Amino acid sequence: MVCPVGFIDSQLARFRAELYDFLRIPSISTDGDHAGDVRAAAEWLADRVREAGLTAEVIETPGHPIVLGEWRGAPDAPTVLIYGHYDVQPPEPLDEWTSPPFEPTERDGRVYARGSADDKGQLYMHVKALEAHLATAGSLPVNVVFLAEGEEEIGSPNLVPFVEANRERLACDLVLISDTEMFAEGLPSLLFSLRGLSYFEITVKGARSDLHSGNYGGSVTNPGNALAAIIASFHDADGRIAVPGFYDDVVEWDAETREQIAALPHDDEEYRHELTVDELTGEAGFTTLERLWIRPTCDVNGLLSGYTGPGAKTVLPNKAMAKVSFRLVPNQDPERVAEMVEAHVRTVTPPGVTVEIRVIHGGRPWKAKLEGPAFDAAREALEEAFGTKPVPMGGGGSIPIVVDFEEQLKAPALLLGFSLPGCNLHAPDEWLPIANFEKGIAALALLYGKLGGGG
Amino acid sequence: MVCPVGFIDSQLARFRAELYDFLRIPSISTDGDHAGDVRAAAEWLADRVREAGLTAEVIETPGHPIVLGEWRGAPDAPTVLIYGHYDVQPPEPLDEWTSPPFEPTERDGRVYARGSADDKGQLYMHVKALEAHLATAGSLPVNVVFLAEGEEEIGSPNLVPFVEANRERLACDLVLISDTEMFAEGLPSLLFSLRGLSYFEITVKGARSDLHSGNYGGSVTNPGNALAAIIASFHDADGRIAVPGFYDDVVEWDAETREQIAALPHDDEEYRHELTVDELTGEAGFTTLERLWIRPTCDVNGLLSGYTGPGAKTVLPNKAMAKVSFRLVPNQDPERVAEMVEAHVRTVTPPGVTVEIRVIHGGRPWKAKLEGPAFDAAREALEEAFGTKPVPMGGGGSIPIVVDFEEQLKAPALLLGFSLPGCNLHAPDEWLPIANFEKGIAALALLYGKLGGGG
Repeated sequence: MVCPVGFIDSQLARFRAELYDFLRIPSISTDGDHAGDVRAAAEWLADRVREAGLTAEVIETPGHPIVLGEWRGAPDAPTVLIYGHYDVQPPEPLDEWTSPPFEPTERDGRVYARGSADDKGQLYMHVKALEAHLATAGSLPVNVVFLAEGEEEIGSPNLVPFVEANRERLACDLVLISDTEMFAEGLPSLLFSLRGLSYFEITVKGARSDLHSGNYGGSVTNPGNALAAIIASFHDADGRIAVPGFYDDVVEWDAETREQIAALPHDDEEYRHELTVDELTGEAGFTTLERLWIRPTCDVNGLLSGYTGPGAKTVLPNKAMAKVSFRLVPNQDPERVAEMVEAHVRTVTPPGVTVEIRVIHGGRPWKAKLEGPAFDAAREALEEAFGTKPVPMGGGGSIPIVVDFEEQLKAPALLLGFSLPGCNLHAPDEWLPIANFEKGIAALALLYGKLGGGG
Repeated sequence: MVCPVGFIDSQLARFRAELYDFLRIPSISTDGDHAGDVRAAAEWLADRVREAGLTAEVIETPGHPIVLGEWRGAPDAPTVLIYGHYDVQPPEPLDEWTSPPFEPTERDGRVYARGSADDKGQLYMHVKALEAHLATAGSLPVNVVFLAEGEEEIGSPNLVPFVEANRERLACDLVLISDTEMFAEGLPSLLFSLRGLSYFEITVKGARSDLHSGNYGGSVTNPGNALAAIIASFHDADGRIAVPGFYDDVVEWDAETREQIAALPHDDEEYRHELTVDELTGEAGFTTLERLWIRPTCDVNGLLSGYTGPGAKTVLPNKAMAKVSFRLVPNQDPERVAEMVEAHVRTVTPPGVTVEIRVIHGGRPWKAKLEGPAFDAAREALEEAFGTKPVPMGGGGSIPIVVDFEEQLKAPALLLGFSLPGCNLHAPDEWLPIANFEKGIAALALLYGKLGGGG
């Protein structure tokens, strides 16, 4: 009988063909017109999980369904909960895709398709790694709960309630997630952190209606000017966030991690050049990678007020809106941050206008120690599959569900990602390296074996 | 033979019916689909000018035509150039009109229609005042050049070249314009100033494309945050404009004018309540009317960046745009102001982004002395027609052509307006008081008589 990795090597063409079938289903969760496609993707996935040798159910929620697969044939081995999502972002703007978003196309060793990196491609690696064990040994080295949702791209409204309601069924020793990037091509990585998020919509309102800027200008506060003053007040001259109390709960990172970050093969000049900016900026006293991973931010995500068409319109708008979000780091709490931001905004809002602050989205930051048998197993599995020792890296983005899993299930999360920086997540021409898809399946199969106590 | 005022009284119903025909023509200059309507309005107006007893031509320009009427039968009397415009603003949003914009409708002593106040209604008063003299005396007390353009609402691109090219034909002793407001109902007014304008589009550009605010936030300057910092830098804590040199050319108004302003029947509380704001604001040390008329401003007219739809999108936009305009007062020069603003913006723009400033519109401020025989004649004519002494008032808006007329034709401008504050200029439900239309015609007929040396 062949070993799982040998089996994987022999089946790569079929695995790829199956993935491409998965990618062809336009499971766009945010678009009601695609609800049928989202369901079709769930059914398709459940069928493949069953074919691999697990049980699988498509479970209804108030929104899109959850796919739950199980295999519990190793009573003495630990239980691993594998989490991922089968829904995708909308593909728009369509005319910026080189090949159609739902017709997987190979170019330069990559597969281009919506969902290739985020997250169908990475989720499907697990299905194939599980199959490799079951096809070769007839069993898995660990007990497995396979949990895939169809609402990640719309904020997972039904996942946390589902986890809360099914804590016993989902009980596990490790939460394993593949929905992130490696640090660079050929360099497998272990994630030690994710940032949290506090996302606000700030609306400044002035007079009863838009006014003529000549007839009224100078006598009333302009909501656009007021909004600019509010946003400008969020930063000080050193690029630090000037909201009182904002840094109270920010953990200073340990020297060892900062040394590991400094040792990564990052080149500021290359990064600057790739982004086409004159200069990199950010909080004084920190490197670019530190600014991205272990320091909080405040970014405008959107601005809208008054007249935005061509030419001049002399309107004094009665409303100005900004979307502003803060990325948070351990141990900042989005609810406390929301209170501080709201209090600060009320303090700096000029007289003569009213301000409304709505919290649109919040998520807690996450930090892992990268210590213990699961991380050791991951390190070994990645090195064997990729031929290189994995590096530790932080994540600038947010996956709020990670903290919820850890809290609800009392199990640590291990984030093993296989896409690459620049993979056009949520953008046209999303891609996944085919080599990473293939090596990733092997790495995961090896990892299951090690988690189960095998070599 | 009746006197002009008696003739006017006897013809009011007809005058109103004619005006309503004029208002029914949707002469929207900014909309190419209405070019035929703009021309129709010009032809209609020229016909009425001819019927009144002047010659009239429709003169082609590279854009919409100019209507030029003339009567030169009083060689010993002065020449008055009457200027106005027969084009109108677009009526949108249509669903906010109580009655259709191009179907004049009387309610509560007002006629509601696009162009009723701005400027067809006021322009047509002159045609009827001229007719009253010619119908009763067979002649006019002054020589008249009647000049109406069809491009005022799109910035008069062809008027100044026309005036420059026809200085001799347009030579006059006084430029008379009715395109402004009275201070209040029943209170005729003489305008002593208009503000100028410097209108900019400021675009801040960052990275090659929009970025994910998690993956990149903190390492590059966000154009939205940078734009907010630029706009916030335009004002200091006292509501003064913080652009270096900005006040260098601002004339301190004389004590007499400031006393006249203070004596006007203005109530801050009523004004505040009407605008539905908590508090009136503005430059420290000046009253509301002073802030509106004799002090400069800086107002955001529009803001656009990133994602502005519902909910959250974690985008770090690569572009942020603001439309910002400054109202200017004597003797500020829009070109000098543009240089100062540009220099200031370059100074305050944070590193890591580039900024582009485009001047979209400029106009010089205007100031009149309200002294001499023409102003005396206007004062008497207004008092006779309205039964109340006129008050002096300033104008917060801008009519750049006024300064051009004075410079090109070496004649002072007299601005006599008959619409009222709140008349919904450029907005839905534009209106003109019918009493002002009627008394205005009488006032203008009396004024012509006095300018010609009559009682």
